[in-house]
Amino acid sequence: MNQQYRKNTDCVKGSQSIHFADKPYIISSGSVVGSKEAQGPLGNLFDMSDEDNLFGAKTWEEAESNMQKEACVLALGKAHVEAEAVRYLFGGDLLRQGIATSMGVEALQIPMFGLYGACSTSGEALALSAMAVAAGYGEQMLAVTSSHFGSAEKEFRFPLEYAGQRPLSAHWTVTGSGAFLVGIRKSHVRIEGVTVGKIVDYGLKDSQNMGACMAPAAMDTIIKSMEDFGRTPLDYDKIITGDLGYIGREILMDLTRKRGYDIQERHLDCGMLIFDRDSQDTHAGGSGCGCAAVTLSAYILPKLESGEWKRILFVPTGALMSTVSYNEGASVPGIAHGIILEHC
Amino acid sequence: MNQQYRKNTDCVKGSQSIHFADKPYIISSGSVVGSKEAQGPLGNLFDMSDEDNLFGAKTWEEAESNMQKEACVLALGKAHVEAEAVRYLFGGDLLRQGIATSMGVEALQIPMFGLYGACSTSGEALALSAMAVAAGYGEQMLAVTSSHFGSAEKEFRFPLEYAGQRPLSAHWTVTGSGAFLVGIRKSHVRIEGVTVGKIVDYGLKDSQNMGACMAPAAMDTIIKSMEDFGRTPLDYDKIITGDLGYIGREILMDLTRKRGYDIQERHLDCGMLIFDRDSQDTHAGGSGCGCAAVTLSAYILPKLESGEWKRILFVPTGALMSTVSYNEGASVPGIAHGIILEHC
Repeated sequence: MNQQYRKNTDCVKGSQSIHFADKPYIISSGSVVGSKEAQGPLGNLFDMSDEDNLFGAKTWEEAESNMQKEACVLALGKAHVEAEAVRYLFGGDLLRQGIATSMGVEALQIPMFGLYGACSTSGEALALSAMAVAAGYGEQMLAVTSSHFGSAEKEFRFPLEYAGQRPLSAHWTVTGSGAFLVGIRKSHVRIEGVTVGKIVDYGLKDSQNMGACMAPAAMDTIIKSMEDFGRTPLDYDKIITGDLGYIGREILMDLTRKRGYDIQERHLDCGMLIFDRDSQDTHAGGSGCGCAAVTLSAYILPKLESGEWKRILFVPTGALMSTVSYNEGASVPGIAHGIILEHC
Repeated sequence: MNQQYRKNTDCVKGSQSIHFADKPYIISSGSVVGSKEAQGPLGNLFDMSDEDNLFGAKTWEEAESNMQKEACVLALGKAHVEAEAVRYLFGGDLLRQGIATSMGVEALQIPMFGLYGACSTSGEALALSAMAVAAGYGEQMLAVTSSHFGSAEKEFRFPLEYAGQRPLSAHWTVTGSGAFLVGIRKSHVRIEGVTVGKIVDYGLKDSQNMGACMAPAAMDTIIKSMEDFGRTPLDYDKIITGDLGYIGREILMDLTRKRGYDIQERHLDCGMLIFDRDSQDTHAGGSGCGCAAVTLSAYILPKLESGEWKRILFVPTGALMSTVSYNEGASVPGIAHGIILEHC
């Protein structure tokens, strides 16, 4: 039992959380989005957008890779940090074999860990980056995730040319990538702790209603985080889920209330913030691992930096499935990771 | 700059490695394989095998999930550790959206990080587990990976019923899953350090010659590890790559020799060890994230435990691609992670 061990593990057995002794900072971030996101309510806040959503590429997959690279370059540039000075990169996306990430970050030549946590991946990447910095494994890490409407429709649903009708419970995959430089250099936002999610499966099988599939996981992680840190929703200015959307949010409110937590007043959802429900025809809201990432970078972090919000719980949510798994009749379990961010 | 930071980062800038101050142990492991692996040269060493490769399931994907669960249960059982006592699980597989892992480890209800590093994933999972333990984030972590011949052929090539002819450079995906309990409880094998790989791309595009695609990444990680730790191949009893196979090994020998390192005498490859070249019709050798994992569990760890080998460099190798990426003409870059294991 060494000193490091005692220092970091101030949570009891059964805890899923880490309360960092030395809190890593989010030094900088970059956000890159497509045209629909640029026309949405947060449109003016993003660093970069592209009108034809191709970012100079010929395929949706390459476009997504280019977004990831640009988001990383933006985050590095804002902090005046060279790629060589980043110890490790933690990244992922929604595509099979995480190809958007592999091809996207290749040019940066940073030693890398590929991740998959569906739309929760931005939480997973931030958690691991923070854990690596707090452990002293390097002065700075890069966390990056992305999604692209075109590549995601092709991956999970139908070719865009098919113009399939979408049920009202379906989400609109966000075209976007967010990158975060996490490190020991002081900024005005630090990562106080993380709550790592379990897979939560209520047996739902409707891949076109991901909000319902993910809400139980969001509930589980939010309540576990409150318990692990001995807090109530009142200890947070906001509790912000990734992409539950309108349907998932209602279910989350019900589920948390039944467990004795009322988060209604504090809750926001990135999937609801990023598109205009009335004018943008995005049904249940935005989704994809780009959704929570770009909303964090462009909308949430500035409010923490200015001190408008003092402390938030950021909870990206993911629906675990593939075309093979749901065609074979498997359920769609969810996972959610909690990241506690505070103004400093 | 806190004590943790100074303590863990004894590598200079540009280093990709971590030399653990407090070295985590591999407390126990479990290996589960299919019938072909059970008939191979290492057949008697595996913990469990199944004659019809279905492990009680109706689909290859579910079979792979069942293997992962069994491998975890075996590792936990050998150490008399309950799943609840494991802080975090790091796991992955080759299937789109890592579905074998999500469905496989769900029942264990351990907070989890999903990973994707192609066939290098067992190295990635071991590296992150060791990093989490050494940082004091928990007393024990579980690292698990798998691959399945049936699900991998379906994912990457053709339906098995199609009986497509395979080129001689092709690998045979190993049906197998290996799980490792990494923690602070003393055993006879500890993880001295890790070298995290970069994506290395020599522009090769032949997904049916993965050995050639991965060999440059293996070379890069092996030499970087030697440089970071100030060592030569003579400091290791063995340098064991994941699944380069017969073709990849020859390329690795050439590439390392050109860089001034001769590893010929010390080199082994899990993909060459697991099948009999003459009688099992497996062409270039075994592959898949199960290949390195089950070989480590069943063949390598016992030699380290007994002290027959004092120190080895274990280097799982991955080819980063998807059916979409190679159909769109993208190259197949490689990645490899180095894990230094020593007898104690």
